[in-house]
Amino acid sequence: MDFQLLPYEAPDFSLPHLAAAPDARLAPAPKDGVAPEQYHAMSIFPEYIKHDGQWHLVKESRMDCVAVWENGDFQVKEFRHLKQGDQIVVGRTEDGREGILMHAHGFHAPNAPQDTFAFRQGRTRETGFSRDYQELYDLLRYEKDHGKIVWVMGPAFTFDARARDAFARLVKAGYVHGVLAGNALATHDLEGAYLGTALGQDIHTQESRPNGHYNHLDTINRCRLYGSIPEFIHGENLHDGIICACEEMGVPYVLAGSIRDDGPLPPVIGNVYDAQDAMRNQVRGATTLICLATMLHTIATGNMFPSYRVLPDGTVRSTYFYCVDIAEFTVNKLSDRGSLSARGIVTNVQDFAVNLAQNLGLM
Amino acid sequence: MDFQLLPYEAPDFSLPHLAAAPDARLAPAPKDGVAPEQYHAMSIFPEYIKHDGQWHLVKESRMDCVAVWENGDFQVKEFRHLKQGDQIVVGRTEDGREGILMHAHGFHAPNAPQDTFAFRQGRTRETGFSRDYQELYDLLRYEKDHGKIVWVMGPAFTFDARARDAFARLVKAGYVHGVLAGNALATHDLEGAYLGTALGQDIHTQESRPNGHYNHLDTINRCRLYGSIPEFIHGENLHDGIICACEEMGVPYVLAGSIRDDGPLPPVIGNVYDAQDAMRNQVRGATTLICLATMLHTIATGNMFPSYRVLPDGTVRSTYFYCVDIAEFTVNKLSDRGSLSARGIVTNVQDFAVNLAQNLGLM
Amino acid sequence: MDFQLLPYEAPDFSLPHLAAAPDARLAPAPKDGVAPEQYHAMSIFPEYIKHDGQWHLVKESRMDCVAVWENGDFQVKEFRHLKQGDQIVVGRTEDGREGILMHAHGFHAPNAPQDTFAFRQGRTRETGFSRDYQELYDLLRYEKDHGKIVWVMGPAFTFDARARDAFARLVKAGYVHGVLAGNALATHDLEGAYLGTALGQDIHTQESRPNGHYNHLDTINRCRLYGSIPEFIHGENLHDGIICACEEMGVPYVLAGSIRDDGPLPPVIGNVYDAQDAMRNQVRGATTLICLATMLHTIATGNMFPSYRVLPDGTVRSTYFYCVDIAEFTVNKLSDRGSLSARGIVTNVQDFAVNLAQNLGLM
Amino acid sequence: MDFQLLPYEAPDFSLPHLAAAPDARLAPAPKDGVAPEQYHAMSIFPEYIKHDGQWHLVKESRMDCVAVWENGDFQVKEFRHLKQGDQIVVGRTEDGREGILMHAHGFHAPNAPQDTFAFRQGRTRETGFSRDYQELYDLLRYEKDHGKIVWVMGPAFTFDARARDAFARLVKAGYVHGVLAGNALATHDLEGAYLGTALGQDIHTQESRPNGHYNHLDTINRCRLYGSIPEFIHGENLHDGIICACEEMGVPYVLAGSIRDDGPLPPVIGNVYDAQDAMRNQVRGATTLICLATMLHTIATGNMFPSYRVLPDGTVRSTYFYCVDIAEFTVNKLSDRGSLSARGIVTNVQDFAVNLAQNLGLM
Repeated sequence: MDFQLLPYEAPDFSLPHLAAAPDARLAPAPKDGVAPEQYHAMSIFPEYIKHDGQWHLVKESRMDCVAVWENGDFQVKEFRHLKQGDQIVVGRTEDGREGILMHAHGFHAPNAPQDTFAFRQGRTRETGFSRDYQELYDLLRYEKDHGKIVWVMGPAFTFDARARDAFARLVKAGYVHGVLAGNALATHDLEGAYLGTALGQDIHTQESRPNGHYNHLDTINRCRLYGSIPEFIHGENLHDGIICACEEMGVPYVLAGSIRDDGPLPPVIGNVYDAQDAMRNQVRGATTLICLATMLHTIATGNMFPSYRVLPDGTVRSTYFYCVDIAEFTVNKLSDRGSLSARGIVTNVQDFAVNLAQNLGLM
Repeated sequence: MDFQLLPYEAPDFSLPHLAAAPDARLAPAPKDGVAPEQYHAMSIFPEYIKHDGQWHLVKESRMDCVAVWENGDFQVKEFRHLKQGDQIVVGRTEDGREGILMHAHGFHAPNAPQDTFAFRQGRTRETGFSRDYQELYDLLRYEKDHGKIVWVMGPAFTFDARARDAFARLVKAGYVHGVLAGNALATHDLEGAYLGTALGQDIHTQESRPNGHYNHLDTINRCRLYGSIPEFIHGENLHDGIICACEEMGVPYVLAGSIRDDGPLPPVIGNVYDAQDAMRNQVRGATTLICLATMLHTIATGNMFPSYRVLPDGTVRSTYFYCVDIAEFTVNKLSDRGSLSARGIVTNVQDFAVNLAQNLGLM
Repeated sequence: MDFQLLPYEAPDFSLPHLAAAPDARLAPAPKDGVAPEQYHAMSIFPEYIKHDGQWHLVKESRMDCVAVWENGDFQVKEFRHLKQGDQIVVGRTEDGREGILMHAHGFHAPNAPQDTFAFRQGRTRETGFSRDYQELYDLLRYEKDHGKIVWVMGPAFTFDARARDAFARLVKAGYVHGVLAGNALATHDLEGAYLGTALGQDIHTQESRPNGHYNHLDTINRCRLYGSIPEFIHGENLHDGIICACEEMGVPYVLAGSIRDDGPLPPVIGNVYDAQDAMRNQVRGATTLICLATMLHTIATGNMFPSYRVLPDGTVRSTYFYCVDIAEFTVNKLSDRGSLSARGIVTNVQDFAVNLAQNLGLM
Repeated sequence: MDFQLLPYEAPDFSLPHLAAAPDARLAPAPKDGVAPEQYHAMSIFPEYIKHDGQWHLVKESRMDCVAVWENGDFQVKEFRHLKQGDQIVVGRTEDGREGILMHAHGFHAPNAPQDTFAFRQGRTRETGFSRDYQELYDLLRYEKDHGKIVWVMGPAFTFDARARDAFARLVKAGYVHGVLAGNALATHDLEGAYLGTALGQDIHTQESRPNGHYNHLDTINRCRLYGSIPEFIHGENLHDGIICACEEMGVPYVLAGSIRDDGPLPPVIGNVYDAQDAMRNQVRGATTLICLATMLHTIATGNMFPSYRVLPDGTVRSTYFYCVDIAEFTVNKLSDRGSLSARGIVTNVQDFAVNLAQNLGLM
């Protein structure tokens, strides 16, 4: 079964209540970083806002942010980026009566019940995931050439030699167009490349090395001495693992700092709001997002990933969002997205990565 | 790397304290089903008991049961099987001084540190399992021809079409020599074969069928009408899934009843102590035990599975015990076995089964 | 806030489609233990079945069982209890058109939104439970005198001295009218009373006793020597804990056997279907069911506990069902009951029991 | 039982191998933020370093940081704070032979087995926690007047009205000397004070308010308009909850930013390494650390909390570390601290807080 995008049906703006709807009201930000009262908070769904009698589809939406009228279009901005006087959409209805229309059900699965693609509530260890896997393989083959696949990764991933290898193969085969992670993921992965261990355990034999608890610190310290990851990789002649594959293929990765970091590695972004911005820049244009074993990064990224994407030719397509985790709690935390294209898979991400690489013919 | 059994080193009975050890004391059961005071409770490890000046290796041990001298050898019996007057080993030391010697560390991994094969305490979602998988593939290829592989299965397993198919392939390829499960596993599996659903959801498309919540009851009721699973399979011309594969290959399966059962299916054993006996009969001779996503059956079976096996030629070999579950709690519940050959793998059993079938070349 | 039962609104049988509905069709069981094709499976909700032109409210319903016309009324029976020729209700609609009417929404919370009392899907560690606790205290005070409170208990409960004491106080204060559990709960509790330990650890200081792993076996063996729990309690002068409190207060307890049991203790019911029957006999008349840390017993009991109860004067009242567990998976497994009166609480049952005893003024 | 500190036994430096030990070697940092090769990484245990023939106890240790000789003493610094030329202790032994002595077992529990106070590996939902609670009550009563109690809190805590109230009472009664948390904890807590909801649900009745999903954003936006939390509290006349209690009592709180933050609230520290520094400043002097339902903050803080404290009079006392979480995974993640004074409690933190407040006589 080849992959097909779901067709998008735009709202019918000739309907009387939409045709007669007023322009959305704008109000100025009272001071830097503060929205006016009754500001409208955006969602992950397509939203149309009326201005000068025209409905504008907001292009790069973000949950819980506000729409600012700027340079002839609506920009979605975080509160902290607002400037005093910015013209901000106000109104707390979403059915058009205030010039704001949320269009949550624009994508249709043609030969399937309406809810088939939905994020089935309460996905558990007892859910069958065969169909999800099959659809994901098809999706990835499609997105490899026609979309942008961004991966969000927790650190546990790199402790397993085979999963690490599987992911490096996915990178090299073109299935990875961006990586969002933290200091720990990069540190453990580079420890593997530099010293052959993960937290001091041999990644192949799992034997503990003498004084191996120094290995992740030595990796960080060495990288800091070189001054950058590329110089470290070149200087020490590293070549396996996730970060090396990303560097080799020119795949951008954003490493966000956290309060539990050692080091950190040179490219880690210490200010979390700068990190948010860098992540959102990576997510712009992303059409599929796959989150592996990290609740923090998954929620952060999910909030900035709209359920739709406006292509250069104006076509509106759906995006796909996968959350893979061994804890139902994490998987279901995202379930209120209610998007047609969100899926949770409850498993160990090591097996998930190996599954993917094997079934895409990479190992 | 080909698989090799760990060599067994028997105790040195010429050591003075063992040579001088007395015979173990025997005391009669005071009434049916009751052991004498100070009875000795057996373990999963090799234990030697002295009788008439000879050390006897107890052959089919079982945790928390007692050793009875009967017909010239020691039999390990559950309390409920004791008869008044049975001659039962008493003594609560294990170092030989009372004629009882537990030999917990008889197996050696030659080129590896002592603890390499141990059930590493605290296995989690963050443990790397590559090496465990590789060793398991090697082990299964060996055991297929030289051992007896018994599988213990929770019901969730059958909800996924691909995992169910993977397991059927394992059965047909000879990797399954016995199955221990409950009414639910068999019911859901047969529902798949009979009606194409699992709890009413199509196992391929995952669409809910109209009135699908009747499907498992209809399956049970139909099977009860036929009177047996083989007649049901034959009468309705069923051919896919786990139970069909077992019937086709003559693989014995024991289905133990539980208080949450509907039906039950005809071969389910309603009395749990009879079920225990039937399970133990299947476990006799087993050399590898793989437990999938069931805490209850895993603990029950683990207790009756000794860490060693005495082969017909007298050789003592180690056995292998795997516990696969998505919950660390379940996996680590078994960790106090402390056996050289016990392993926990934290993942979704669906992926585990597919991994196995793929890496053994079966799908 | 005092506790008030929700008023019940019976269906309006004068509605044309109900008045005109036919009698429900009856068909004979084709053989012992087998229902006829198209049998109707009962639910936990009030169901009315038409016979001789009269709508009969089925009194003691049970999920996934069938209704048999017998002695002028409908009896709900398990498949295994059917006799060849039994007259069984057939039909798979529930809206009256076949003489079968399920009435799922008969209870109304007067000043609250319809869904307030519902089992909110997806209860997690992040749900606030203050209101649930407050309502539960009120409910228990009411049920103590006007209802029947049955507790379903997993074994973990007894490992904590304070929780064990809290529960004994609940028993002695009259908040416990029946207990459903297994061999392990009773064994660990009696080990505490007999030897002061739980699995060999001192229940007060948590120090491990020498050879303490014998303690649960010694407890079982001693009790088997006495022949019954009451004789054991009397003979050894035991007086603390759950079982002693039940015996002292004449509270019935059903202990169902399982395949992981040692022993078992004398009153444990080995045949799980006999145990089901004994449990259902305890549940008859129960108005509140509280399940603590046991998935198996919770599901088993939940299936046999209807969401309503017909009082001697003919009044229909709602029942209350609580599931308390530290695992969201267990709590949410029951969430599809969809009953007005089902609640899940995610916490450690030790704290739950102590909370209850403290807030009911018992400790 | 009144609380007593464990006595500390310093190493016996007159032992020949310690008396003869050389001074620890110092090497200069090769550039800013980089340690020299073979740097010594500190632990949470007391460590003595020899300099000019004298053993110096390092006072404010921190896991995985380095010791710098500065102004006549050893300072423990994060890599990122190193300046080129800083004199850093090198050596990777800990037994004194290189002038570095780690003293992990200096605290003794007098009448208890050596391991009684240890963080028992594998604490689970089945562990009995009575004794831990009792000891904690005693500890808190002692620390209230003689120590410094710092609390580390995840956001879930504030969703429950009673738990929020319980914690506010702990603050007002003097059991809280510092709080480490994130933007979410403060936002949800202030939403409760400002609008009476948590994520839009009434914190008392749990009813969802219309457009309640705006409430946390409105809270943040309003606070940003005021410019600070104290001005917000004063301007809107807020008075209940955790943050209000901290402001009222002058209890310092550090709010660290994260990539999933909305807003943030004005005092949130966006740069995680600045946040680390602020947290460590709060932890300086702390003698008891209690971590509630946050893996990220718990690990971050645990790493900077030494197992001992040097009092002004030179006495060395032990510190206490509690990790309370509903997930065994989180609780056991800290178990390798191996400290005499670390404890894990597996429960819902709501119940934990209420338990504490009730048993300390505060509610």
